[in-house]
Amino acid sequence: MLLCDIGNTSYHFYDMKHHYKKSVSDFDPSNITKQVYYICVHHFTCKKLQQLSNWKNIETFVDRTLYYETMGIDRIVACEAIQNGVIVDAGSAITVDVVKDGIFQGGFIIPGKQAYENTLKNISPALKTSINFNTDLKNLPKNTADALSYGFLSGLKKEIESYSLDIILTGGNAQEMQKVFEAAKVDEMLLFKGMKKVLKKNSL
Amino acid sequence: MLLCDIGNTSYHFYDMKHHYKKSVSDFDPSNITKQVYYICVHHFTCKKLQQLSNWKNIETFVDRTLYYETMGIDRIVACEAIQNGVIVDAGSAITVDVVKDGIFQGGFIIPGKQAYENTLKNISPALKTSINFNTDLKNLPKNTADALSYGFLSGLKKEIESYSLDIILTGGNAQEMQKVFEAAKVDEMLLFKGMKKVLKKNSL
Repeated sequence: MLLCDIGNTSYHFYDMKHHYKKSVSDFDPSNITKQVYYICVHHFTCKKLQQLSNWKNIETFVDRTLYYETMGIDRIVACEAIQNGVIVDAGSAITVDVVKDGIFQGGFIIPGKQAYENTLKNISPALKTSINFNTDLKNLPKNTADALSYGFLSGLKKEIESYSLDIILTGGNAQEMQKVFEAAKVDEMLLFKGMKKVLKKNSL
Repeated sequence: MLLCDIGNTSYHFYDMKHHYKKSVSDFDPSNITKQVYYICVHHFTCKKLQQLSNWKNIETFVDRTLYYETMGIDRIVACEAIQNGVIVDAGSAITVDVVKDGIFQGGFIIPGKQAYENTLKNISPALKTSINFNTDLKNLPKNTADALSYGFLSGLKKEIESYSLDIILTGGNAQEMQKVFEAAKVDEMLLFKGMKKVLKKNSL
C-alpha cells in the first residue's frame, strides 16, 4: 500500500518505509499500478486521479461533520492524527489548527514565508527581505530587517503559545519554524499518520 | 505656513485649519508658492521637491540618532508626536512603533490590509477574501473567511496589547483598526503634530 499527500507543488509518497516527493507538474500518476490512498488539494491533479481506479481518495472516508465545509482535507487529516495539540502546517500558506480531546476547536490561515516576502517586496523595494527565524523576539527591533522578521513571527508566536498546548510543526518550513517555537516537535509524517488513522477507522 | 506629508499615493496637506489630499501621480507641487514644510517617502516626488526652494524638508531638522538609520521619516515624525504609547500606522504597510518617556523603543512592519488580501488571493483562489475587522477574535474560527481575518488580526492584537501602553491609530485603515483595538484612539493628524513639534524644537 502507498499513501500520498498531494499539495500545490508536489506528490508526497509514503510506502510505509520511506517517503519521497514528485513534482505535481511533471509526474504521471498512471505510472503507479499499486493501490494508493491519497488526499489532494491541487484541483487539476484531483480531477486526473478520479480517472484512475487504483487511486482511492481518503476524503470519502472522513467524517466531515466534525470540521467545517470548506476546510482543506490536508488540515482535516492532520487533525485526525492527534488527540491534543496545535498543528502548524507551514507551507505556501500556514494553517494553524487546534485539537482538544480529539475534537477540532478551530483554526486560522496566514500567508507562508515565501508569499509574505513577495508581498513586502511588492509594497516597496525598501521592504525586500528574507525572513530570519532566528530574529530576537524578546526585544523590539531597531533595524528594518529585524522589524520585518519580527512582524511576521512575533504575533504568530504569541497567538499560538496562548493556547498552552503541545505544538506540532509540519510542512516545508517546519524546521525553520522550530527556531521560533523551541518546545515544538517537528513531524513531517503527521499527515500520513492521520491518513493511516482514517483508514484504520474505516477498517481499510 | 503649510505642512505636507507625502506617502506613496498622496500629498496630505494641513494649513493649520483644514487638511486635504492630492494624488502623487498628478499633483504639481510647483503650483504652491507658500512656504511648505514637508516629509516625503515617495522617492520620485522627494527628488522633485528638492528643486523647489519654498518646499523645506523637515527631515533635515530631525535628530536621527534617536532612531535607526533606515527608519522612514513618517515613522520618526509620528514618534516625535507622543511621549508614551504605541503608534499603529495602518497604510499600504502597517508600522507599529513604541515610545516610552519620549524615547523610541523599537517597532515592526507588516503588510497592510490590501497587500495582505492580494497575497492570500495569489496563494490560492480559495483564499480570496476581504479582511473583516469585526471578526470574533475571542473564539477560534470555524470557517474560511473568519480563519483568514483572524489570521491577519489576532496575533497583531496580542502583540500590540502585550505592551500595555496607550494605542494611537493613524493611516488609511485607522478607523477599521479601531474595531480591533477598542480602547485605541484614532488620530489622523498625528504626523502633523509630530511635524509641528520638530519645527518648534528648531524654533521654526
